[in-house]
Amino acid sequence: MLPTLTDIHAAAVRIAPYAHRTPVVTNHSLNKRLGATLFLKCENLQKVGAFKFRGAANAVFSLSEDEAQRGVIAHSSGNHAQALALAARLRGIPAHIVMPSNAPAVKKAAVAGYGAKITFCEPTLEAREATQAEIVVQTGATIIHPYNDLRVIAGQGTAAVELLAEVPDLDVIMTPVGGGGLLSGTAVAANALKPDIRVIAGEPTGADDAYRSLQAGRIIPSVRPQTIADGLLTSLGTLTFPIIQAHVEQIVTVSEEEIINTMRFLWERTKLIVEPSAAVPVAALWHKKVDLRGLNVGVILSGGNVDLEKLPWL
Amino acid sequence: MLPTLTDIHAAAVRIAPYAHRTPVVTNHSLNKRLGATLFLKCENLQKVGAFKFRGAANAVFSLSEDEAQRGVIAHSSGNHAQALALAARLRGIPAHIVMPSNAPAVKKAAVAGYGAKITFCEPTLEAREATQAEIVVQTGATIIHPYNDLRVIAGQGTAAVELLAEVPDLDVIMTPVGGGGLLSGTAVAANALKPDIRVIAGEPTGADDAYRSLQAGRIIPSVRPQTIADGLLTSLGTLTFPIIQAHVEQIVTVSEEEIINTMRFLWERTKLIVEPSAAVPVAALWHKKVDLRGLNVGVILSGGNVDLEKLPWL
Repeated sequence: MLPTLTDIHAAAVRIAPYAHRTPVVTNHSLNKRLGATLFLKCENLQKVGAFKFRGAANAVFSLSEDEAQRGVIAHSSGNHAQALALAARLRGIPAHIVMPSNAPAVKKAAVAGYGAKITFCEPTLEAREATQAEIVVQTGATIIHPYNDLRVIAGQGTAAVELLAEVPDLDVIMTPVGGGGLLSGTAVAANALKPDIRVIAGEPTGADDAYRSLQAGRIIPSVRPQTIADGLLTSLGTLTFPIIQAHVEQIVTVSEEEIINTMRFLWERTKLIVEPSAAVPVAALWHKKVDLRGLNVGVILSGGNVDLEKLPWL
Repeated sequence: MLPTLTDIHAAAVRIAPYAHRTPVVTNHSLNKRLGATLFLKCENLQKVGAFKFRGAANAVFSLSEDEAQRGVIAHSSGNHAQALALAARLRGIPAHIVMPSNAPAVKKAAVAGYGAKITFCEPTLEAREATQAEIVVQTGATIIHPYNDLRVIAGQGTAAVELLAEVPDLDVIMTPVGGGGLLSGTAVAANALKPDIRVIAGEPTGADDAYRSLQAGRIIPSVRPQTIADGLLTSLGTLTFPIIQAHVEQIVTVSEEEIINTMRFLWERTKLIVEPSAAVPVAALWHKKVDLRGLNVGVILSGGNVDLEKLPWL
């Protein structure tokens, strides 16, 4: 059972009291440079600085009172961890976050700042899953997967609903793709609202499992992916892959250098702080990996969480 | 004759086809930290990355056809130069910009990129004024002063009109103050729309002529002002001073260190690129130079033009 527009509309109502309706900005010099008219949906201005809050909030506020009281859990050191921690705090329930012991101090502090209980483990997937499982047994907490979860996918789709409400005449909608939560939620929403819209994703060459999976017609996970776009290291899931297969026209890959120089250009021209992952779809346009000249292109700027002490172009 | 709300409303209509209606953003962690509810009017997302476009566009589109054809002129190496160049290009008329020969290459390129004719001169005020006067004699161009101009002041006031339309229950409205164009336009608009609103400005200690002028009851220009907030080096003008005297409750001064750490905090938390000048009013709050706890505070984030290769905290 895959999420439908009805699920996404329900998610929109559910999270409306908590999430920002983020602005859509346009930028003349960017458009001139790209030859297309871009409408940037600023999820970097979302709570916790990323679209991830939408999915986490929808999942947390979908729980029954009984489930909710036992708390929620995820293993993540990224934006999902912060998003889940904040959503749980807003509902007044415990959040357990399993993090590798080598996670950056700044990420630990951010998650702790939202009131989550952090459990550290060895930095392997096995250790993370095992630690998570132990806590689930002890507490009865509900696992909220960062993307392979219908409630999360529906939540992520709400950004596209807002964008299309504000700019109905989009020809194309673009997102980055990591695990595929944002892309699949966007694809379901956009396809249902506007069947002729084209859904295109950008992906780093160094973590191109979605590109290869679509080519092969089956999930081919990334092995030791490497990219500065740290939100996109994950591979497609069993729920996100079939949606993407059904509704996404194309996955376009970009190099590390292309990501960094596009990120730099976006900062300079739009005055928005975007993280490398958010620059990925725009990099596909800027580096002419896809020809969308003359079209109205919605782009979901996925997030803005960047270490301001270490900018990649300095 | 000082500008009125009627002038500002006329300006809003005049510039509407050209200027962005910029978003107003709120940020929970910022509010928690400051103890007040801030509504950030994002003029960093305005055309040319600064509120200056509002005033320049109002001035340029106020000219008669005959005046317009002879072009416009200003001496400036900052945001006003870019704003005037773009406004003139949009009207299809010449813009002359007089710049000191030692202006940064990036500023020259930006102004040239908007199609202005740049004339370089010695880096003294005398040379700038003399060069400007020569070009006026040759071309008949209209001087558009960056702030001591009724059309410019009325244009700058349109940001406050938009902000109050979106958030009517503001208790306080804050801007930075340099020459006072933004502050006086904001004060006229806010005072007319909401007579009990408090108008408060932030100013760098290193360029505190407005603070000292209000204390003294007469204009006391800055002598060799020094501040990283390069938009605020100018001193109040004969038009802006009386408006500020009539309508502004308080000018609050902040140190260089306070400006820089507030700017850093704004980048990190709001994901907005703001220039040092834009951080100045927020710094006044953050460093408890003024107590606005529990109040709704509108802040006009004046601009976002920053050299991304040289961040002040690195």
